Amino acid sequence: MDVKKAVIVQGKKAKEASRILANTSTDIKNKALLNIARKLEESKKKIISINDKDMNAGKKAGFAKSLLNRLELNEKRINSMAKGLREVVQLEDPIGEVIGIKRRPNGLEVGKIRVPLGVIGIIYEARPNVTVDVAGLCLKAGNAVLLRGGKEAFKSNQILTEIIQQSIVEEGLPCESVQLVQTTDRAAVSVMFKMNDYLDVLIPRGGAGLIKRVVQESSVPVIETGVGNCHVYVDSSADIDMALRIVYNAKTDYPAVCNAAETLLIHKDIAEKFLPLIYKKFSENNVELRGCAVSRKIIPDIKKATEDDWYEEYLDLIMAVKIVDSIDDAINHIYKYGSKHSESIVTSNYNDANKFLKEVDAAAVYVNASTRFTDGGEFGLGAEIGISTQKLHARGPMGLKELTSTKFIIRGSGQIRET
Amino acid sequence: MDVKKAVIVQGKKAKEASRILANTSTDIKNKALLNIARKLEESKKKIISINDKDMNAGKKAGFAKSLLNRLELNEKRINSMAKGLREVVQLEDPIGEVIGIKRRPNGLEVGKIRVPLGVIGIIYEARPNVTVDVAGLCLKAGNAVLLRGGKEAFKSNQILTEIIQQSIVEEGLPCESVQLVQTTDRAAVSVMFKMNDYLDVLIPRGGAGLIKRVVQESSVPVIETGVGNCHVYVDSSADIDMALRIVYNAKTDYPAVCNAAETLLIHKDIAEKFLPLIYKKFSENNVELRGCAVSRKIIPDIKKATEDDWYEEYLDLIMAVKIVDSIDDAINHIYKYGSKHSESIVTSNYNDANKFLKEVDAAAVYVNASTRFTDGGEFGLGAEIGISTQKLHARGPMGLKELTSTKFIIRGSGQIRET
Repeated sequence: MDVKKAVIVQGKKAKEASRILANTSTDIKNKALLNIARKLEESKKKIISINDKDMNAGKKAGFAKSLLNRLELNEKRINSMAKGLREVVQLEDPIGEVIGIKRRPNGLEVGKIRVPLGVIGIIYEARPNVTVDVAGLCLKAGNAVLLRGGKEAFKSNQILTEIIQQSIVEEGLPCESVQLVQTTDRAAVSVMFKMNDYLDVLIPRGGAGLIKRVVQESSVPVIETGVGNCHVYVDSSADIDMALRIVYNAKTDYPAVCNAAETLLIHKDIAEKFLPLIYKKFSENNVELRGCAVSRKIIPDIKKATEDDWYEEYLDLIMAVKIVDSIDDAINHIYKYGSKHSESIVTSNYNDANKFLKEVDAAAVYVNASTRFTDGGEFGLGAEIGISTQKLHARGPMGLKELTSTKFIIRGSGQIRET
Repeated sequence: MDVKKAVIVQGKKAKEASRILANTSTDIKNKALLNIARKLEESKKKIISINDKDMNAGKKAGFAKSLLNRLELNEKRINSMAKGLREVVQLEDPIGEVIGIKRRPNGLEVGKIRVPLGVIGIIYEARPNVTVDVAGLCLKAGNAVLLRGGKEAFKSNQILTEIIQQSIVEEGLPCESVQLVQTTDRAAVSVMFKMNDYLDVLIPRGGAGLIKRVVQESSVPVIETGVGNCHVYVDSSADIDMALRIVYNAKTDYPAVCNAAETLLIHKDIAEKFLPLIYKKFSENNVELRGCAVSRKIIPDIKKATEDDWYEEYLDLIMAVKIVDSIDDAINHIYKYGSKHSESIVTSNYNDANKFLKEVDAAAVYVNASTRFTDGGEFGLGAEIGISTQKLHARGPMGLKELTSTKFIIRGSGQIRET
């Protein structure tokens, strides 16, 4: 069978499975998740030996250390996947929630009920643990899932999917509730883009290039995730110690992730005091600053920032810095260069705090906290399938509820409409 | 300027306007809406004389009566547009609502605030009153809107947009909050499909062909609206009189709209009793039935339905009829042939009612009521911008709230995250 046909058959089967999943009880879904967790733990040796093949191929191909790290499945990571599944079991099932039933003047009772989305397509890159994380969340929310992992992790993803399928079939769920695209051919992705009959949504998880391609080419509805050019703005009234702590944390706690800060904006009235302090702290910790002209008058050793720097998601120990004349300038800079992910102000001024919260257009807007908190777990959603940077359907960290839709339900007693 | 550039410039200006609109008070938005209503009423003569030009061109081009009817703006329709705007003024402003703020263990206060989507693109067909209805709803929800109307109504849409712009500028809103694409060149639509930088969502309102094209070609997120292949299922326990009333109403009250029923499903145990009665009622009122083999054994005069009939959205006084063996058969038929719009069961059985509500996958699922109620006004949303038949973002009638997004807001006191 050619690639196109094979993927379409998988989509068709996923759709069939999704009808059954939509009407499966929470108990059975939870039992299936616990069974996956158990089987993963029991299969550690097998998983690791198969992952070794992907790792060896990667080493031969000269993969960077960071990529090999992401690819690796060791005992600790397998335990962590199992633990993640058990946490999802603890989360409330969003399906079946009845929302806002109201009686209309004609006696009709109109409201909504929460239902699964149906079939979710996920396109992701190196990390094979995404296979398990994503399958667990989709299943709990009653969705079937069609997974397209990176080719470097293909064998690892295959064994994980097999274990998932065995586990869920034992609990009576359809095998095709969780499927992996069985080819590393890039053509498979293009097929998924046009599978409107079988996929209800496509979620890309990965770098900016992948996300852009999916948005541009998919006619299946997409939820954009991830790109984060985040800012911390140090307002004129900021508590200096707090600002140092927050800026340093937002940049350095985990520079490779999307909620790390990339640009520092400083109000001109506090710049001469604050910039030398953060410059010192950064210098001592190998963080490079790239600054505007004004910042370089205060600290001539700062490298010059180019226009490109303001757009850059470094994902590294580099931070751009700009001195601004006012909070409005800061907000305008963020509007122009930001990726609408996570933005933070450090301030002691009531009006400035409210203005920033109101006017900054991003998935998560902070006062006096690190941008690093943009995460489903940290926000109390329990787990996340990704961070949406679009405005439609879901914005910010997406938990189980964001993997659902609703339908209107209407209970009548014979009502008709006469126009 | 060429078409592409011109449309992109409009998008850019819409985006700028949307920033201002997002932070405009409810009072000012309402004043602007009232001013549009007033000016429309004052400009009746002018509007009608310009609409006459579109009407005359249409007559010359040999437009069907139904199309000319949709195109026409008379005194009554202008009054109705103004009345619609005044009703939107009465609706609660969704923007600024704060949702579910919770204190996290580390003291962060995390919640959401409702914000506008930004810029909404609308692609619609003949009816020029859509221009005003849609502009009113978008403005109230703080969005800018880029309108692309049908070429047959171009002059009418131009004068309506001019009146809207004059009215909102007088109240201090940016002129570019509401813009009409200033060309009838089809290329303009293709440009809108790729304007991800300026459009946050694209909503097609029109026939199946238009909607399909938008879904297939747009990389801007789309909300699919409208196609309705709706069913009424008469269960074995149905009250015969109620079933007659509901089926007749769902088919005949307004056959040209998406929530009209197209197929009648009848449980075999009630078919011999029910079918002759509805057949008689339909025959007396010029409704044609096209039936399955079993139905034609009961009433041989019924025309034969082909496989295509089950998929058809007639939008006319024609109804397909099928006798089914069970409620499961009915649900499976709807799943296979339906467009997931509005589906109704007529039953007296508690379990069947619940099963239908639970298992039928559609935007609106009814027990004992006509499918004709699927409408923002009837559901209590106040007004509607369309009926979504997709699962992402919004499903079913979309009111003001469906024209909004949310952002997370996080109030801290210096929190940092240490991983």
